[in-house]
Amino acid sequence: MNTSNNSKFPLVVIVGGGFGGLQVAKQLKDKPVDVLMLDKHNYHTFQPLLYQVAMGSLESESIAFSLRKNFASQKNFRFRIAEVTRVDAENNIVETTIGNIAYDYLVIATGSTTNFFGNKDIEHYAMPMKSIPEALNLRYSILQNIEEALLKVGKAERDPYLTFVLVGAGPTGVELAGSLAELRNHVLTKDYPELKKEDMKVYLVDFLPKVLGPFSDQASNAARTFLTNMGVEVLTGVKVESYDGEEIKFEGGKSIRTKNVIWSAGVMGVVPEGFDKEVIERGNRIKVDSIGRVAGFNNVFAIGDVAAMITDETPKGHPGVAQVAIQMGQHVAKNIIHIINGEQTSPFKYNDKGSLATIGRNKAVADLGKVKFQGFFAWLVWMFVHLISLLGGRNKVIVFINWVSSYVTYNGGTRLIIRKFEREGLTENHHLPNTVD
Amino acid sequence: MNTSNNSKFPLVVIVGGGFGGLQVAKQLKDKPVDVLMLDKHNYHTFQPLLYQVAMGSLESESIAFSLRKNFASQKNFRFRIAEVTRVDAENNIVETTIGNIAYDYLVIATGSTTNFFGNKDIEHYAMPMKSIPEALNLRYSILQNIEEALLKVGKAERDPYLTFVLVGAGPTGVELAGSLAELRNHVLTKDYPELKKEDMKVYLVDFLPKVLGPFSDQASNAARTFLTNMGVEVLTGVKVESYDGEEIKFEGGKSIRTKNVIWSAGVMGVVPEGFDKEVIERGNRIKVDSIGRVAGFNNVFAIGDVAAMITDETPKGHPGVAQVAIQMGQHVAKNIIHIINGEQTSPFKYNDKGSLATIGRNKAVADLGKVKFQGFFAWLVWMFVHLISLLGGRNKVIVFINWVSSYVTYNGGTRLIIRKFEREGLTENHHLPNTVD
Repeated sequence: MNTSNNSKFPLVVIVGGGFGGLQVAKQLKDKPVDVLMLDKHNYHTFQPLLYQVAMGSLESESIAFSLRKNFASQKNFRFRIAEVTRVDAENNIVETTIGNIAYDYLVIATGSTTNFFGNKDIEHYAMPMKSIPEALNLRYSILQNIEEALLKVGKAERDPYLTFVLVGAGPTGVELAGSLAELRNHVLTKDYPELKKEDMKVYLVDFLPKVLGPFSDQASNAARTFLTNMGVEVLTGVKVESYDGEEIKFEGGKSIRTKNVIWSAGVMGVVPEGFDKEVIERGNRIKVDSIGRVAGFNNVFAIGDVAAMITDETPKGHPGVAQVAIQMGQHVAKNIIHIINGEQTSPFKYNDKGSLATIGRNKAVADLGKVKFQGFFAWLVWMFVHLISLLGGRNKVIVFINWVSSYVTYNGGTRLIIRKFEREGLTENHHLPNTVD
Repeated sequence: MNTSNNSKFPLVVIVGGGFGGLQVAKQLKDKPVDVLMLDKHNYHTFQPLLYQVAMGSLESESIAFSLRKNFASQKNFRFRIAEVTRVDAENNIVETTIGNIAYDYLVIATGSTTNFFGNKDIEHYAMPMKSIPEALNLRYSILQNIEEALLKVGKAERDPYLTFVLVGAGPTGVELAGSLAELRNHVLTKDYPELKKEDMKVYLVDFLPKVLGPFSDQASNAARTFLTNMGVEVLTGVKVESYDGEEIKFEGGKSIRTKNVIWSAGVMGVVPEGFDKEVIERGNRIKVDSIGRVAGFNNVFAIGDVAAMITDETPKGHPGVAQVAIQMGQHVAKNIIHIINGEQTSPFKYNDKGSLATIGRNKAVADLGKVKFQGFFAWLVWMFVHLISLLGGRNKVIVFINWVSSYVTYNGGTRLIIRKFEREGLTENHHLPNTVD
């Protein structure tokens, strides 16, 4: 490919424009390096609000931001739409869908994708939600199934289309369950006068005994109470056995007939080919040392969801959250500059600022260190933090207006089926260029 | 299908939720009829702003509005996502993708689609822009081709990707040409620092001797001057001969090498099967009488772009503009009520409020009856008229913010490639349910 690098500065190639990759590039501004970012999309996705895109409350472009536009003023930054198919670290080359690229330093920031734990049926029939195309597929699938329900005669035939089973009670599952409950409670009978509130059912399932596993018990209990009061059936300590597109079966014999299974029960790293099995840790993550470097190489780094920084303090690595990616990205960029300048590198220390999750209108939970609170104030904090974290002033204003409009009307969002969803090409393929997204 | 009609009121089936269909349904509110609207999308499209979606200046959902939400408070209104495959007017039945539906009154409001005048090559390789999925395809195609240009070495290989040929100098062609010129003049070198302004070329082609054919000479000349000053090459009196995806050839021997041909040179009505050839007029429109009724039937009507109301005063029918569809829709609804009440129907009279077209920043033309003006004030009028015509307060606010942001920054819009565009399934298929949109 034509990414001719005529400058005498070393070239840092960043693979992925997520929370981590973004920070690496930003930190390298005005430094004596050239930066080339590769991403299969030309935008950064603000993943924490993906579920609102899936629910039709926000437009996809309100939570996405052009990577080119974001770095338009950074002179040493270039961008290409490309997927990395293989890393040839021996020869300092990444093989991509637009050709081979020689790097001086490489940062793998490819993030994670949905983990179906090898169950092909579930992968085929359940809906994932880790990218904007997937969130849109989910939206269209939900809306199409409600439309389909209107065409069915009789409760037995209709019920599966209006039954929603969310597997995985982490923040994503909880947020989706809350939103679906609000859809049922406030919108369903307005948009579909043929239906009754009771026709729609929302289940939240997790194999752990609590919702919001990594949160405090206080937050977890509050979230469960909020959900239950909104009409969500919370099933914890329940393991999914199978799903065939018609019926989801759980260990122990219980089952639910549903056309809508949404899977947020786990993630795994998106690792390009070319790495030895020895450096791949649990969750398909690349093992890095305390400065963020992949074992065996001086100039290859991994950050965020795709990295497992195994140290004495973090024997399992860090949690797969935006804050880890952001802080690791900043830190690794600094270490790269240290290495170039012949200075001492420093180990990464994660500064955990706490966790937030929202359940719905006026309802959220916040674990901020020792300060824990739930309800209206947590919800305000949640909104504030997410609004200021969004890239772009226009996006901030538009998301804010959408939220105000939804809050006032109880009937936000547009719920449009712009493109018909079909099951082919459901998940994003991470190694071929010509996929559905 | 289950659209059981237990009421004793006659059922009016409206096919299409465009400008015309919307008005029919609205006028029938609180009248002694049941209304069933069918559309293949669950939203109304505000077509006059489609070009801004194609250019990435507006999000698709800002110019679309949920049909269900719009009629949520109208008790006699029901909606189904469906395509009409055939009209069996002898038996008062429409055959649809969700089953057969018996009607008492039928209003065909299916609008128009791009007319390629039978040229299969052009249909395959040129981009149309008559629906939101098509506008998004166009956006992705433009952005992908600019990305592709970055990968090409040498001017000869690169130029076709950065050359844009707009065929058809009606309002759509003029608006797209102006927007592309602004993209080149204000955005190109910011987003793609590897490129120079001069690398991108925009041509506007029409076989008529003037741009904006139906407008006054004053408006037409002003538009041409605006475009030329912005760097658009305007080629009038030029007829397209062929396009093979690489080179567009014109009668007389001239040709342009380009990967981007955008076709807005004509439209034709979208007519369901089942109508006799005798009632199909030029432009594939259904011939209707002065009250809007299809010849030979007492209870079948057609309105808007798909209707050709041939009378002594309008020997060619009416122009294919939103105002005609809106006024015809209102009028036909009233005539249906007259017929039901046994009252006298009245002939349709079009009240031409005038024409507006925008070319770009501070530049528009207005022909309002005898009042004709161009420039900044026309541009303000254009924005005002389009903003108040948009459905939904949220949409109005969001479009307004986008416009203000674009005006202030010279760099509006997000230009995201949410889904990769591929040539398969380029145009919307009007008779099969499982197409790409």
